[in-house]
Amino acid sequence: MMDAALVVDRQSWRANGPSLGNRSIPQETAVALTYNGGTYAVMMATPRDLRDFAVGFSLSEGVVNSVADIESLDLVRLGDGVELRMWLGGPKADRLQERRRHIAGPTGCGLCGIESIAEAMRPAAIVGHGRHFSSEEIMAAMRDLPSRQKLNIETRAVHAAAFWDATRGIVALREDVGRHNALDKLAGALARSSAAASEGIILLTSRVSVEMVQKSAAIGAPVMVSVSAPTALAVRMADAAGITLVAVARADGFEVFTHPHRIL
Amino acid sequence: MMDAALVVDRQSWRANGPSLGNRSIPQETAVALTYNGGTYAVMMATPRDLRDFAVGFSLSEGVVNSVADIESLDLVRLGDGVELRMWLGGPKADRLQERRRHIAGPTGCGLCGIESIAEAMRPAAIVGHGRHFSSEEIMAAMRDLPSRQKLNIETRAVHAAAFWDATRGIVALREDVGRHNALDKLAGALARSSAAASEGIILLTSRVSVEMVQKSAAIGAPVMVSVSAPTALAVRMADAAGITLVAVARADGFEVFTHPHRIL
Repeated sequence: MMDAALVVDRQSWRANGPSLGNRSIPQETAVALTYNGGTYAVMMATPRDLRDFAVGFSLSEGVVNSVADIESLDLVRLGDGVELRMWLGGPKADRLQERRRHIAGPTGCGLCGIESIAEAMRPAAIVGHGRHFSSEEIMAAMRDLPSRQKLNIETRAVHAAAFWDATRGIVALREDVGRHNALDKLAGALARSSAAASEGIILLTSRVSVEMVQKSAAIGAPVMVSVSAPTALAVRMADAAGITLVAVARADGFEVFTHPHRIL
Repeated sequence: MMDAALVVDRQSWRANGPSLGNRSIPQETAVALTYNGGTYAVMMATPRDLRDFAVGFSLSEGVVNSVADIESLDLVRLGDGVELRMWLGGPKADRLQERRRHIAGPTGCGLCGIESIAEAMRPAAIVGHGRHFSSEEIMAAMRDLPSRQKLNIETRAVHAAAFWDATRGIVALREDVGRHNALDKLAGALARSSAAASEGIILLTSRVSVEMVQKSAAIGAPVMVSVSAPTALAVRMADAAGITLVAVARADGFEVFTHPHRIL
């Protein structure tokens, strides 16, 4: 697998004119996710923790319900990218076939727009009650984040998604140029390790769009905390899913947008 | 059309405990892009400048080659989102049909991963020579950006893509929660206004991933300038496309990663 960062030469312009130097920048590669020999999606991703990405993406997209549904997973290096080659058994394979037929359905059906939007806006899973967290715990979790973002320390250009629990602190952290990918990688890492998502907090460095809430709900985490702000749709989705959405979390405080009862 | 921002109540936690207040956050809505009655994609986007988005997305994805290929474009408000309903004529419609068959192709073809990656990594268009820009012009363009980001001033949570030229300054600026969407909206705005992309600079507030370079190349802009860093793949793609890629552009300077000859 290629390194996750690369040092490149570049010209630096400052007040006194240009000078030569270099900078460490993140790698990015085309990743094809294939099931039973058919491509489901090609994503541009940071080439690290790609097995986690394969599992997390499959769970987030609802292609599978559990890690066990994936009969095999191979990481195949191709000339211009990476194929995450998965094989699914029995019912899951049939359902995939059905979905492909749906994508290819007759044109001019009229309902396509409505149906596709309904699928994208499907209600998130409703999370369990989980435990309570003190404001000190939330601040402590966010304080621990920056020093654990190894690739970001090197490149200052990648997002992180992490999982924190009260007994162990940050249990898992995954990084990617894309915020969705970082969270899918974390979802895969948690699923593969059988961590109890209901007992902890998902930490994000990015703005919280609706898909970030849908993915967190699929993981089953009752609390999300992000450095950046949420969208209005993300707030509505978090409210419906029973998730405590904490955002604009900085050194001096944070803001709670939904279900504040879990914060003490 | 709904407003692009919404004021919501939230709890603010600071050292002295929680207090009630509110925050303006960006709206986000599911947008289905349909051609000739079939859904091509559903994107989550900020509900502003959606006609620009329809045109820019269609151009970036290569569904059409020019605005004229789109015979009609209707913005249809649905319960849970917006449909951008487009109709294409003759050859474009046939090609779309062909592509849909391709997506639905037989499973188990073995080549799917390679083919899909090759499509995602297709070489960007090679831009023309364009003109030269002084370092003062680049710094001035970036200085003008923040005061023009109206939705970001209100919400502090959306990206911008803008087009600057030496005679008029910032000619067009589009905002979105997603950086790709912001650039697609700009592409659409430029295509609809017949602006001469070869004479100016694309300004971005986001990290520069490879798709941002592919979109800029499709627009035909020879120079891109961003606040954030590029990925290694974006640098390679910009180099191949003949684009001058300027990044990490801040108040005190900037860095040039490819084709520095256009900067004087």
